[in-house]
Amino acid sequence: MILEPSRAELAARRERLLAELAGMGAPVACLFAPLYVLYLTGFAFIPTERPLALVLTAAGATILFVPRLEQEHAEALADVGRVVSYPEYPGEVHPMVQLAGLLIESGAAGGLAADSDGYGGGFGYRGGRLSDLLPDVSVVKIGATIDRLMAVKSPEEIALLRESARWGDLAHALLQRHTAPGVAEIEVSERASREATAQMLAELGPGYRPHGWMSAGAHAGYRGQIGAHSAVPHALITNAIIRPGDVLVTGATAGMAGYYSELERTLIVAPVSPDAARFFGLMRDMQAAALDALRPGRRCADVDRVVRRFFAEHDLLPYWRHHTGHSIGPGVPNHQAPYLDVGDDTEIVPGMVFSIEPGIYVPGLGGFRHSDTVLVTASSAEPLTTYPRDLERLTIG
Amino acid sequence: MILEPSRAELAARRERLLAELAGMGAPVACLFAPLYVLYLTGFAFIPTERPLALVLTAAGATILFVPRLEQEHAEALADVGRVVSYPEYPGEVHPMVQLAGLLIESGAAGGLAADSDGYGGGFGYRGGRLSDLLPDVSVVKIGATIDRLMAVKSPEEIALLRESARWGDLAHALLQRHTAPGVAEIEVSERASREATAQMLAELGPGYRPHGWMSAGAHAGYRGQIGAHSAVPHALITNAIIRPGDVLVTGATAGMAGYYSELERTLIVAPVSPDAARFFGLMRDMQAAALDALRPGRRCADVDRVVRRFFAEHDLLPYWRHHTGHSIGPGVPNHQAPYLDVGDDTEIVPGMVFSIEPGIYVPGLGGFRHSDTVLVTASSAEPLTTYPRDLERLTIG
Repeated sequence: MILEPSRAELAARRERLLAELAGMGAPVACLFAPLYVLYLTGFAFIPTERPLALVLTAAGATILFVPRLEQEHAEALADVGRVVSYPEYPGEVHPMVQLAGLLIESGAAGGLAADSDGYGGGFGYRGGRLSDLLPDVSVVKIGATIDRLMAVKSPEEIALLRESARWGDLAHALLQRHTAPGVAEIEVSERASREATAQMLAELGPGYRPHGWMSAGAHAGYRGQIGAHSAVPHALITNAIIRPGDVLVTGATAGMAGYYSELERTLIVAPVSPDAARFFGLMRDMQAAALDALRPGRRCADVDRVVRRFFAEHDLLPYWRHHTGHSIGPGVPNHQAPYLDVGDDTEIVPGMVFSIEPGIYVPGLGGFRHSDTVLVTASSAEPLTTYPRDLERLTIG
Repeated sequence: MILEPSRAELAARRERLLAELAGMGAPVACLFAPLYVLYLTGFAFIPTERPLALVLTAAGATILFVPRLEQEHAEALADVGRVVSYPEYPGEVHPMVQLAGLLIESGAAGGLAADSDGYGGGFGYRGGRLSDLLPDVSVVKIGATIDRLMAVKSPEEIALLRESARWGDLAHALLQRHTAPGVAEIEVSERASREATAQMLAELGPGYRPHGWMSAGAHAGYRGQIGAHSAVPHALITNAIIRPGDVLVTGATAGMAGYYSELERTLIVAPVSPDAARFFGLMRDMQAAALDALRPGRRCADVDRVVRRFFAEHDLLPYWRHHTGHSIGPGVPNHQAPYLDVGDDTEIVPGMVFSIEPGIYVPGLGGFRHSDTVLVTASSAEPLTTYPRDLERLTIG
């Protein structure tokens, strides 16, 4: 049972990035995005107003630059050679001034790669750009390169996503079991999540780490996609009561060291109207066509084109709202590049993991979307989420 | 009972921003941060790879630029005059190209204010900067201005924070009641949150909107600050079991249309060691001193200086980890500018709301931190969170 990526895995990720850096003529990299820090060091943290950055050098140094309050936390959990801390933000000296010094000391005068030209911030953070703080250093962007490396999953990552999918499936089964007319969205979601989490904790034991800070364990719910409101693809949680005839769109996952699989199903509360049954069937056929199109050697855009064609051929274009899917990696939301989108020409290769989730959204009736987490294999594609997809088993009551 | 900001309130916020814009010579503003969109339009959404921006003009136009999947959602819930959508990201035409056209059409050639020079993204988003897409337009930064406006709360916002605090207090009481040696962190947190949320839903009724997408209702938990691990100020959730003698640091809140009050308490599981009791007492004295220092006319830095002095005078400097507090507004984490930090010279004025949370972190023993949500009044400061603060009532067993 794997509970988090091994140190060897983290080191291998950094090696791959350093190989890319060598080709860019940048001996030093500086990464601010919490997602990249997690991917390259295993360190998950709460992003705040305080900048935090990972510094990597071609010579093999790995330094995590953190606010004082994260020092012991990072020393205990980040797979880095050294933790350097600054007192506070805004503080008496701006942390970016100290970071700029650390970068020069690390050799950035010879060239610097960064995921962004300063801390992205939010939370009222204000600070200078690296290119202003280090006017003599050429800064090259490296975010797209890391995204490309992250898109292909290692065996450990696939194992974590499989484990996440196993518990997401359980939470989903409980959600379906407890859903009935008269039940409130939030209550049924909390009940299913709690029961699945309890089983998960009992089985995985004390070594289990969700790496989340707002939720832990397994989760299943509706996120507001209840009845006619299910026609809003990204609805938010409401205090809705489930009623007969409602079309429902679910979501379920479980955190495994920051990895979140994606499972979504369309449920229908009996009685199922002929219209609802028809759109459900079209959605299933469309998802099957997308799954069939996902194979190595094709382009991401090809998969989305198959779905767009399906929409056109079945007079469904008024009900189209979004692309077919996204790469799945660590983080929340688990949306990452590349995208199964007509505008994304990335070649599909074995080891990529995508959500496959074309949806049909019918105003006044509801939304019809299944989402599966799908691994690209040597010759085809394998869903890691295995929850039933047919209407018979997805009808409530 | 207020469940969300009124339309009049949202309009007044935009009026205040437009008055600032007039002084900047920028007839058009473009805002990407989800927090600013929520603040100015009441629209909460799931941020993804797809850019979303609010366009405001001096002439009074309010336009929300959204991906196709958010169109109906925004039309139903955003307080704007017009919703304009683009098909998808990356799509066949990059959405920023369409946004640039919309900005020019709105009068941006006469000057543009923006919170950032392009969509902040994440999620693998790549796109050009506004200043590159509109090379003839001067772009002025407006984020700090909005932060300044947001820092002073309206009566409606204070009412929402009070309501959030009421439910956070209840969730916290349940957390304390259910905490006992042998109980798992995640289980007790889920139980308290579920019970408090059920009461909240029953009382607030179907109009209640948390505006969250990962959690709903009330929440209380430990976020990993259990036993010696409580000495890590921003620990993350673990699968820990609570034991006799443990120092625990809690957190509790409830979402009210995106507003989250902050309540944290140090609990100690009996038997309470003399050391733990001593640090607990010092922390209480320090928080009281900070509360006393928070009053209109002073500077944010003054409050943090009082706390730093307390650390120095009581030989506590090795246990210092972070500043005294932060402004509280909508969003998660609820950290906003200004900061109660020696480096923040902002004047404290009535209507500001801060967390007051100086902490003492003793490696090997635990962390000692209470956090209260405190409103600056005409002459002093009023805690909106009223949960007991004394050791007697915060001892378990």
